[in-house]
Amino acid sequence: MQEKKTALLLIAHGSRRTQSNEEVKQLADKIAAQDSFNYSLVEAAFLEIAEPSIPDGLKLCMEKGAKNIVIFPYFLSAGRHVTEDIPAEVAKFTKDFPQIEVSIGNYLGCLEDMPQIILKMLNSAD
Amino acid sequence: MQEKKTALLLIAHGSRRTQSNEEVKQLADKIAAQDSFNYSLVEAAFLEIAEPSIPDGLKLCMEKGAKNIVIFPYFLSAGRHVTEDIPAEVAKFTKDFPQIEVSIGNYLGCLEDMPQIILKMLNSAD
Repeated sequence: MQEKKTALLLIAHGSRRTQSNEEVKQLADKIAAQDSFNYSLVEAAFLEIAEPSIPDGLKLCMEKGAKNIVIFPYFLSAGRHVTEDIPAEVAKFTKDFPQIEVSIGNYLGCLEDMPQIILKMLNSAD
Repeated sequence: MQEKKTALLLIAHGSRRTQSNEEVKQLADKIAAQDSFNYSLVEAAFLEIAEPSIPDGLKLCMEKGAKNIVIFPYFLSAGRHVTEDIPAEVAKFTKDFPQIEVSIGNYLGCLEDMPQIILKMLNSAD
C-alpha cells in the first residue's frame, strides 16, 4: 500500500500527434479511476516533444502535495530513454528538491504476462 | 481459432541496443510457447535499425509456409509508424505476393486493461 502522499507519474515518450499524447493523459485518468488505485494522484509527463516535460510533471506532483513520487516508464524497451534519460531528469530534480523522494518503477515492457496479454488481445479480435 | 497456416508477425520499432531487439525476439518465442497459441508460427520484425526488416519478416513467414499473416504492432501509440509506415510496408508486400493475405491487428496501446495492468505491476513491486 502506498502512503497517502505518494504520486504516480506516468512517463511516455511524447509524439508529434496530439492524439497520442492525449491517449497517455487519458490513461493516467483511467488509472486514477481504478479501485486498486492507492496513490494520492496521478499525472502524465513526456520525455520529448509534448508537454508537460518530466521536470514539469515532477514539479506538478510536488505542488499538488506529493512527498514521494513513483515514476512508471510507459515504454516497451529499456532503450537509452529508460536507462539514461529518465534517471538523469530525476537526478536533476532530486538535487533541486531533496525533500521529495522519487523512485523509478519497472518499465511496461518488463511485464511478465506480456505473451498471454498479446495472445488474448489477438484471440478476442478474431 | 486461426487457420493452421496463419503466421503471427510481431513488429517492433527496433533499437540501437541489441538487447532491446533480443527482448522482442524472446517475446515472440514466449508467445509461441503459450497454451493459447493457435498460429502456425511466430516471427519478430523491426520497422527500423534492427533485422529482420518488415519485408524480410513477411517473406520469412511466407517461406515457412504461411498463407495468412497477422501482424501485431508492438507499439504503445498510434503514431506515424503504426498508422502509415507498417501499412505501407504491407501494401508493398501484398502487391508483390498477392496470394498471401496479410492483416494488421490492433497495436498494444489499444489494450483496454492497460490501467489495471499498470497498477498490478506497480502494486506487485511494492
